[in-house]
Amino acid sequence: MQFKFIDGGICAVKGVSAWGVKQDKYGLALIKANGSAAGVFTRNRVIAAPLVLTREHLEGGRLSAVIANSGNANAFTGPEGMEDARAMAKLAARGPGLDERTVAVASTGVIGHRLDLNIISSQVGAVTAGLTGSANGSTAAARAIMTTDTFSKEVAVELPNGTRIGGIAKGSGMIAPNMGTMLAFLYTDTAMDPGELGKYLKRAVDKSFNMVVVDGDTSTNDMVLITATGQMGHTDPEEFGQGLEAVCTALARMIAKDGEGATCLIEARVTGAANESDAVLAAKAVITSPLVKSAIFGHDPNWGRVVAAVGYSGAEMEPDCISLMFANNYASASLVEKGKIVSTPEDTLKEIMGSKEVIIMVDLGVGSGCATAWGCDLSYDYVRINAEYTT
Amino acid sequence: MQFKFIDGGICAVKGVSAWGVKQDKYGLALIKANGSAAGVFTRNRVIAAPLVLTREHLEGGRLSAVIANSGNANAFTGPEGMEDARAMAKLAARGPGLDERTVAVASTGVIGHRLDLNIISSQVGAVTAGLTGSANGSTAAARAIMTTDTFSKEVAVELPNGTRIGGIAKGSGMIAPNMGTMLAFLYTDTAMDPGELGKYLKRAVDKSFNMVVVDGDTSTNDMVLITATGQMGHTDPEEFGQGLEAVCTALARMIAKDGEGATCLIEARVTGAANESDAVLAAKAVITSPLVKSAIFGHDPNWGRVVAAVGYSGAEMEPDCISLMFANNYASASLVEKGKIVSTPEDTLKEIMGSKEVIIMVDLGVGSGCATAWGCDLSYDYVRINAEYTT
Repeated sequence: MQFKFIDGGICAVKGVSAWGVKQDKYGLALIKANGSAAGVFTRNRVIAAPLVLTREHLEGGRLSAVIANSGNANAFTGPEGMEDARAMAKLAARGPGLDERTVAVASTGVIGHRLDLNIISSQVGAVTAGLTGSANGSTAAARAIMTTDTFSKEVAVELPNGTRIGGIAKGSGMIAPNMGTMLAFLYTDTAMDPGELGKYLKRAVDKSFNMVVVDGDTSTNDMVLITATGQMGHTDPEEFGQGLEAVCTALARMIAKDGEGATCLIEARVTGAANESDAVLAAKAVITSPLVKSAIFGHDPNWGRVVAAVGYSGAEMEPDCISLMFANNYASASLVEKGKIVSTPEDTLKEIMGSKEVIIMVDLGVGSGCATAWGCDLSYDYVRINAEYTT
Repeated sequence: MQFKFIDGGICAVKGVSAWGVKQDKYGLALIKANGSAAGVFTRNRVIAAPLVLTREHLEGGRLSAVIANSGNANAFTGPEGMEDARAMAKLAARGPGLDERTVAVASTGVIGHRLDLNIISSQVGAVTAGLTGSANGSTAAARAIMTTDTFSKEVAVELPNGTRIGGIAKGSGMIAPNMGTMLAFLYTDTAMDPGELGKYLKRAVDKSFNMVVVDGDTSTNDMVLITATGQMGHTDPEEFGQGLEAVCTALARMIAKDGEGATCLIEARVTGAANESDAVLAAKAVITSPLVKSAIFGHDPNWGRVVAAVGYSGAEMEPDCISLMFANNYASASLVEKGKIVSTPEDTLKEIMGSKEVIIMVDLGVGSGCATAWGCDLSYDYVRINAEYTT
């Protein structure tokens, strides 16, 4: 199955209109699209009010819109937080005349402070008036939800039969003042019931967003939503699943690349694991290790740290079976082959370690499980961004 | 039971003599003490050769000496690594006329490079000749095993009946060029069989060294050994256990304080957890979070990040039950009480956040489990130390 990447982000999908505004750190995005819907939510035990409300609204299996603000996460805000989330849904529903119980609400920003509904009220007119199905609608919405992200994140693919899948996202890098949030809003014009949509969403999220580690912290506000407008009729579900995974993976890579202070995207590809869950453990351990991350920042091909991370990951491994390569998109250099250290051309290695995308390939040599995870290097700027803010 | 901290480190213990030398980054320590012995070893799947050998030698339940080098970890070195570790035991045994099968071997430093036995051979004469039961023997050994540690780590306590327990350690902060190692060598003059000694060691290590997180990476070479010379006869085993925990905790705190680039020791005290293992999960999540660590570096009382870390730790929690304080050794400031944000005097909070030791107290309010973990802040220097070396 072939699919192509196209422009337009979420607005490439039939039935989707969007807009967004931003004033200082306070942004508001509105996305209007009627269809069956499903969501995946944070696994943090502290769950922000908008997520509680959105899960409730998703019980009906349909969404008509998503409203998302940046600047305040509406988390750890008690019963008042729930009232404020409901008020946001009502504000979003009013202009376009939607049922507020089909509006999803998302928030990102400071936690433990009550939402300022005055700001949102003052912005909602502009986003409602701005709603457009053209590509700049997608970009405006993607920009409105940015916090410490340095670039907006949107992508779309078209399947052979013309079905489209698009998404926007914001980064999981941890965000001043309190914490970051991974938000992704996905759209497709295929027709699919909410249960099946949820199944494919879960599968795609597990292979993409759940394989991104910027700093290992899980936010109270993480949320991925998908709405299927159905305007292109039915699609082969497996083709749809592959397209959705491609969209999610592209957004996940952007999030990793834009981790706070990142100078380099790191991709950890683990093969030869005893099973897939072992491969996931090993790939995540490599991508999470502060030692590996700071080595990559220093352009240091420090394979010892990679081996050590795999060693404590919990994955089954034998030091004598492990092989390890560093690579970029053009070249690769082998450093360990079945437990033996091999010498590798200095020039190639130097070129690879200087790349903006470094691929760490680990073959555990004990089975056929594989997994890929994405992260970024650990730089001075990460520390600066997260230390300098004072609450 | 009261015990007092005394000078002399491991040489405060009857029957222990020690010495150490250091030339550039290559150090060698020898500690001679005959007695029953036990050990705790890394949980990394990649286990360095000296650990394999030392576990083998401990099967007899007795040690006569420990030889430890810094500068090369003798890890990921295959069958040659095992030969080199055996050679180290032999070199240590020769001078004092010991049985090499009762000599423990430890190494810390670069991994994946074969040990240079010439260096060790050239140093072993000096350490053997230097062996002394006076306090400077303990200090010389503690200094010899340092890598990026900024101060040597030794401590001793005396129980009411005169029994002594002493230890030296080196830090778990990750070490140029490849990785760090936590080593601790503990001694006591009580009489105890190896099985019981191992039981108390495991218990003390779980409450101390296993509760230290500098960067979450587990080395291939981590090892804690204890030898009981028996020269003071039997002690009440529970009193001994408490004294041993005090020694291990003191060393663990030094290791946390001396984490790479650390400017501040962080102590996370979790109470009110559903059970002890939940408390351990929560305390370790707080101390491991790069967000919490960089907030502390920035003197930012960012309680939202603490709550979020507890939320994803896996521990049972209810946002409405949680209480949170920041404290130092002189003052404390409450920020959240049973889920409600409370205002706290700015001056007190500022003073606390500027301390060299910041205590984060979290009461989960759902049970009676408690645990304490130690770590350090995440600073520019951590990144510098771990990025600048090039293998």
